[in-house]
Amino acid sequence: MKGLNEYIEKNKQRFLDELFELIRIPSISSIAEHSPDMYKAAEWWKNQLLSAGADRAEVYKTEGHPITYGEKIIDPKLPTVLVYGHMDVMPVDPLELWDSPPFEPEIRDGKIYARGADDDKGQSFMHAKAFEFMVKTNQLPCNVKFMIEGEEEIGSPALTKWCIEHKDMLKSDIILVSDTSMISQEIPSITVGLRGLAYWQIKVTGPNRDLHSGIFGGAVANPINILAKLIADVHDEYNRITVPGFYDDVLEASEYERELLNKAPFNLDEYKKALDINEVHGEKGYTTIERTGIRPTFDVCGIWGGYTGEGSKTVLPSVAYAKLSSRLVPNQDPDKISKLLKEYFEKNAPKYVKVEVECMHGGFPYVCPISIDAYKAAEKACEKTFGKRPVPVRSGGSIPIIAHFEKALGTKSLLLGFGLESDAIHSPNENYPLFNFYKGIETIPYFFKYFAEMSK
Amino acid sequence: MKGLNEYIEKNKQRFLDELFELIRIPSISSIAEHSPDMYKAAEWWKNQLLSAGADRAEVYKTEGHPITYGEKIIDPKLPTVLVYGHMDVMPVDPLELWDSPPFEPEIRDGKIYARGADDDKGQSFMHAKAFEFMVKTNQLPCNVKFMIEGEEEIGSPALTKWCIEHKDMLKSDIILVSDTSMISQEIPSITVGLRGLAYWQIKVTGPNRDLHSGIFGGAVANPINILAKLIADVHDEYNRITVPGFYDDVLEASEYERELLNKAPFNLDEYKKALDINEVHGEKGYTTIERTGIRPTFDVCGIWGGYTGEGSKTVLPSVAYAKLSSRLVPNQDPDKISKLLKEYFEKNAPKYVKVEVECMHGGFPYVCPISIDAYKAAEKACEKTFGKRPVPVRSGGSIPIIAHFEKALGTKSLLLGFGLESDAIHSPNENYPLFNFYKGIETIPYFFKYFAEMSK
Repeated sequence: MKGLNEYIEKNKQRFLDELFELIRIPSISSIAEHSPDMYKAAEWWKNQLLSAGADRAEVYKTEGHPITYGEKIIDPKLPTVLVYGHMDVMPVDPLELWDSPPFEPEIRDGKIYARGADDDKGQSFMHAKAFEFMVKTNQLPCNVKFMIEGEEEIGSPALTKWCIEHKDMLKSDIILVSDTSMISQEIPSITVGLRGLAYWQIKVTGPNRDLHSGIFGGAVANPINILAKLIADVHDEYNRITVPGFYDDVLEASEYERELLNKAPFNLDEYKKALDINEVHGEKGYTTIERTGIRPTFDVCGIWGGYTGEGSKTVLPSVAYAKLSSRLVPNQDPDKISKLLKEYFEKNAPKYVKVEVECMHGGFPYVCPISIDAYKAAEKACEKTFGKRPVPVRSGGSIPIIAHFEKALGTKSLLLGFGLESDAIHSPNENYPLFNFYKGIETIPYFFKYFAEMSK
Repeated sequence: MKGLNEYIEKNKQRFLDELFELIRIPSISSIAEHSPDMYKAAEWWKNQLLSAGADRAEVYKTEGHPITYGEKIIDPKLPTVLVYGHMDVMPVDPLELWDSPPFEPEIRDGKIYARGADDDKGQSFMHAKAFEFMVKTNQLPCNVKFMIEGEEEIGSPALTKWCIEHKDMLKSDIILVSDTSMISQEIPSITVGLRGLAYWQIKVTGPNRDLHSGIFGGAVANPINILAKLIADVHDEYNRITVPGFYDDVLEASEYERELLNKAPFNLDEYKKALDINEVHGEKGYTTIERTGIRPTFDVCGIWGGYTGEGSKTVLPSVAYAKLSSRLVPNQDPDKISKLLKEYFEKNAPKYVKVEVECMHGGFPYVCPISIDAYKAAEKACEKTFGKRPVPVRSGGSIPIIAHFEKALGTKSLLLGFGLESDAIHSPNENYPLFNFYKGIETIPYFFKYFAEMSK
């Protein structure tokens, strides 16, 4: 990769200027009035890819927001890398907590502050610039395809269908994604697992109207008390999930794998201090890293019922609700788990109340084996630019489209993210350190180089 | 009681006209802008008592709403009945559910429809008219005092203090109260017990901010899950309350007393049908009548935490809340029970969350022994006017001021209520049947007569 650092150094300001153009487009996918901004962002990406060196680039209309696709095929016999990213961003509320306007990027303390600075405008844009460098210096070692969608933050409904319809066009040897974080600037890491997700809403109905808790209390089941018991019963004394069959498909990690996972730097005292908790709490027999990386969960995301205003009101309420979710691990199937829990609650519903469970949405978990060429190439690239062998980590979060790519296209994804947990994605004052931005542009070409060499 | 029925018959319309004047004053004690209406109602009562035959009547100012007091002392050696009632009413929301304006009384199907028609303007006004009859016909057999307050619906804060300050003035042999219901027009009943009340708010705090349920879920305690478990653990498999010491002071009802209680007419199928429930649910070993009459409870009146909007949002919330209440029975002490449960939750709080319990308010339970003269006089009076011996019943509800009277004044109260459960008190379309209104005016003079005779 001749002249890489010089190229970056020379073009630093232009890279930022271009990224800032993209950031200034308020492409919030979940808010209907921003639909025109999604088209602006898609057109921007088309022009960006063409000027960076793509043979062709196009904006594809969908039932939802547009998708920009571009490619440079230098030799059909060479391997192909498909870069995935997203141009849409999360809403910016609460606006008053931002120290600078979310769509007017500002550099403070060596960081770009703006909505999308990291997630995923900053991270996906690094690929455009790494691609530009390789094309302009005649060092592109393989074919490249770009697929930049506009609905990642709302669950990728259009892309799910679109990538099945364009399976041939999207054919590749690896999907390369920068939409995750690394441990720190000193400790590079590669995300090798994502948890899946299942989500439900439960409704417990007691009497047909709110009752006087004096006249009826003690004789008529209280739906909040019953809901509390149903929720409490999901965990046993070891904080394992009691739903029959819940763990049936869980791929138990080997001792070796667990040993590796626990080598990732982790300071329990700092972790507790940052969250202001006295103790962590989870499934018995597993460390905190394992609990979020390789074990499934059952969390209540929301609960409501009865009188919730100021002061006191005595009432025996008619209805109580909760929003429930499970994070899933390989090889749990979100549809199967959704059904299991729905049946469990409905079966365990005492006869004096009515229990209804709605399965809301889900996503499959994902694992990237560290044995594949793409992982090895990424490992080597990070070692080259960070001077340190990266750590494989399992993220507790979910990116459902990644598991979908494997199902729909038959292709693995490599999650080479350059963000930091402190980047405040989805929150006010989202930011992306310039160090990570330029380090990403520097690392990506090495990935291409090593991946092409290994694939020979 | 010579000429009683003739007197009522002749004055029927005037009685209604006068009551309607009182009803038209929108004396909602909980809404500050109605404070002037409280004074209007208090002055109205003063004039009413004077014109009915009181020797003196006065409006007493308090820190809150005024209290009207009046008396007629015919002979200090004769027994004294202290009539208690309240001139304040509940708010009228939701207004759109009323079929006629709440403060413009209307007679439909033989019932007075208006806020306060029963609770407690209609019921307390019967005493003024019974008193008027006895005075005008020279048949008043004992001394009478009236104490009509303006804060019953907000917990009687001013009266609590005022009756201690005016203990001598309020000296009496029995406090007579019409603010409860009877079983039906065909089955008269007298309320011989009221449950007490304790009320808490609990706050469970986990991490110092809402967390990403993927990144942290499974490793950090979820305060909603923990709150659900704390609530669920309060009941055992027999639906008994597990808090140590909770039942220590409960006066167990004798077999005979339970037998009597269960003689009250009760149809379980109709009860379930009216509430649209498949089964009742309560403490094992007790009937529905016993569960609401003589057993204490633990009900969640409200719960909230996390995301409660539309659709799904994955979050591991920072905080969860619930409003909790217990109905208490003789001889449970609300302060003691409040403390017990607070300590129980704080002691059972797992170390990975912070649990705070606020004791909000409470009231003592009350029992009127059926052996006292006043009960026997009321029984005989109802038998005279309804043609049927009334049933003694335990109400599941609470009127904290009644227990306070006994503590502060050393005087028992007799709960001779003429309402019906179907009167929709506190709800839209509150009503009071004319039958009950006139039957009350007819029954009260007999109570005075028999009570005076028994006290000789």
